[in-house]
Amino acid sequence: MKTSINPPKNEWLALLERPTQTIESIEETVTAIFDDVKRNGNDGIKRYTSIFDGVELDELFVSEEEIIEAEKLVSNELKDAIAIAKRNIENFHAAQKTDKVAIETTEGVECWQEKRPIQKVGLYIPGGTAPLFSSVLMLAIPAQIAGCKEIVLTTPPNKRGKVNPAIIYAAQQCGVTKIVKVGGIQAIAGLTFGTETIPQVYKIFGPGNQFVTIAKQLATKYGVAIDMPAGPSELLVVADEAANASFVASDLLSQAEHGSDSQVILVSTSKEKLQEVEDEIYIQIEDLSRKNIAKKAIDNSKLIFVETKEIALDLINEYGPEHFIVCTNDNDFYVDGIENAGSVFIGNYTPESAGDYASGTNHTLPTNGYTKAYSGVNLDSFLKAISFQKISEKGIQNIGKSIEVLAEAEGLDAHKNAVTLRLNSLK
Amino acid sequence: MKTSINPPKNEWLALLERPTQTIESIEETVTAIFDDVKRNGNDGIKRYTSIFDGVELDELFVSEEEIIEAEKLVSNELKDAIAIAKRNIENFHAAQKTDKVAIETTEGVECWQEKRPIQKVGLYIPGGTAPLFSSVLMLAIPAQIAGCKEIVLTTPPNKRGKVNPAIIYAAQQCGVTKIVKVGGIQAIAGLTFGTETIPQVYKIFGPGNQFVTIAKQLATKYGVAIDMPAGPSELLVVADEAANASFVASDLLSQAEHGSDSQVILVSTSKEKLQEVEDEIYIQIEDLSRKNIAKKAIDNSKLIFVETKEIALDLINEYGPEHFIVCTNDNDFYVDGIENAGSVFIGNYTPESAGDYASGTNHTLPTNGYTKAYSGVNLDSFLKAISFQKISEKGIQNIGKSIEVLAEAEGLDAHKNAVTLRLNSLK
Repeated sequence: MKTSINPPKNEWLALLERPTQTIESIEETVTAIFDDVKRNGNDGIKRYTSIFDGVELDELFVSEEEIIEAEKLVSNELKDAIAIAKRNIENFHAAQKTDKVAIETTEGVECWQEKRPIQKVGLYIPGGTAPLFSSVLMLAIPAQIAGCKEIVLTTPPNKRGKVNPAIIYAAQQCGVTKIVKVGGIQAIAGLTFGTETIPQVYKIFGPGNQFVTIAKQLATKYGVAIDMPAGPSELLVVADEAANASFVASDLLSQAEHGSDSQVILVSTSKEKLQEVEDEIYIQIEDLSRKNIAKKAIDNSKLIFVETKEIALDLINEYGPEHFIVCTNDNDFYVDGIENAGSVFIGNYTPESAGDYASGTNHTLPTNGYTKAYSGVNLDSFLKAISFQKISEKGIQNIGKSIEVLAEAEGLDAHKNAVTLRLNSLK
Repeated sequence: MKTSINPPKNEWLALLERPTQTIESIEETVTAIFDDVKRNGNDGIKRYTSIFDGVELDELFVSEEEIIEAEKLVSNELKDAIAIAKRNIENFHAAQKTDKVAIETTEGVECWQEKRPIQKVGLYIPGGTAPLFSSVLMLAIPAQIAGCKEIVLTTPPNKRGKVNPAIIYAAQQCGVTKIVKVGGIQAIAGLTFGTETIPQVYKIFGPGNQFVTIAKQLATKYGVAIDMPAGPSELLVVADEAANASFVASDLLSQAEHGSDSQVILVSTSKEKLQEVEDEIYIQIEDLSRKNIAKKAIDNSKLIFVETKEIALDLINEYGPEHFIVCTNDNDFYVDGIENAGSVFIGNYTPESAGDYASGTNHTLPTNGYTKAYSGVNLDSFLKAISFQKISEKGIQNIGKSIEVLAEAEGLDAHKNAVTLRLNSLK
């Protein structure tokens, strides 16, 4: 691990730098596959599924039989755990519903804002070694609460053309309307253009590797919105004497096991605690099944000592971590002062994995410094705000003159005229 | 004008198609300017300002003297009109503030969501013939209410290196912290990378021509968020016997004067009203100062007759207009049923220009069908939602087991271990 003691402010940027990825070569691949899927629809989708996933698909959708089979294959223990996570996620996201905002800005001028669901959304769930059914919960639950009509989930099939039963089961629990057995760039292309059978959607959500990330970015050029740009997962912990070093070490390791490019940072105002946590990490890491992955991430991780909590907070806001654990004897200081973070975990008994699975908060969060401008996925991610206005005869008489003056000053006669005609009719 | 009578549903897509723009050649220019500004900072900015705006700038910022001068140059009548618009916009956007959303999802598991301002934002205001100070109000007012610390406005200078006084005055009224005399691609590049004197921002807002639009899209590749993709402005009016044809014509013309690529559509269940409005348009257009621009847009505009309001609503939701005026004898039907629109104007006395300037709603709205997934600019556009969680010893005992089961099923041992350690410590 790399330890920095009192790094000067002008070195923070370099110290906190995330690994950059070169994307030029990927872009060409992504563009080619998009063009192909746009032209050839399902044939293109199937071709790339054969190339990248090594399976010839006859049928692109999970069938009714596969849904029934999945239900049988998932253990009752897992079903119960999913039910508890689902209930908490539902409660937290349902609480985010906002009422219509309505005011009369001037007598006779009623303005209001209402949120309406995005009608068609696509949820991307990565394949690979771990079946990320927790991401299904995190995306499908708010989509369902928002009232999205069409919720299309895409996920890569395995070599036998099957989707992991836990993913199918979770999708069924949360109102997903279609499960497409397609992953990677071709899945994003399918959702972007639509095919003979895959619906075109208006917004695409979900994590993915570099290829999926670039594909989502390309999708925005074709008029499809995306949840956010993605990057490797990150955790920053601020800890002092109040923190349990063993717990902190376990949290840093839970981040490190995600991948060798995971970002793991510990900031402390206590040199003793830094050392204690480091020692604990090297003890705990030995027992992990993903030890090799975790070791690489830990080698690149950073232990940073700073003199005061004010400096610590400045540095943390400069970094803007995706996950931020606060375990100090003045947690309120950090909670009140944090400007840039995705999700914040407070106190010794709040591990990051609680938010990853079951506390109720969403785990789809901005990385790579995007916390400075982006929210994590929440109920509003599946809604858009529409504004309404209704002006009475009295109302247009109250604000008409101002509109005329403003429109004229901007040189827009017809804008002015639309008001003048109405005002004249009321004389 | 082009009249369609009862277009069949399978022809709607073609009928409602927006003009597509080719962007490949622009992209090269934008990329070259971005690279230059990234490398050369203010020197690059000044070079392109010289090339595109025809002025050699010594100083990139509007000075204290220019601010004082602007205040003198703006008429009292315009100041009063700006004050009224500002008050309404402030009221409507302040009403959009949301409280902290806090719930205990399980006993001992507190979750909450709080919104915090985006610290640094850039507002782009186009130059050209009309000084769009109204866009200054629409962007700076919510930024100020949100609590953004740095609000940087950029706008192109005229040939004498000056910024329109109404823009400077409006910016001063709304808490803009810096006004940069730079427009076009180089302005967006400056906000994206920062220069010796221009601050790097986290999110860029505002309208602009094709170059600015592509530049904003490129900015997202460098980690800067943008408000939304932009396209030519649009208005769709639905009108029947209840509508005043003269008013409707004036609204369609106020849209048409924006530019020859403006989208103007009238949908009606009354053939008589369609004809009446068309006749009125040809009468009113003659008196407009921007007659030539408006005529081109009107030539391409569409009058669509459909048999029922249900069909009309379907068609309107398929199109997803930026501005949507409803003037019928069943306005509630449309207001309740609209799924995709930016801003909705209801009744005979609610011209679009009211929302453009002074009713209080925002005029920065999604075009080009983006209403299907994007909100217009609103208070939330300047905030991001952060989630927080605080779990007690009791809380982790309540949900710990579920997290262990879920983490194990996803093959993430270290995630499980972070919970197991805590549960064991409580045994």
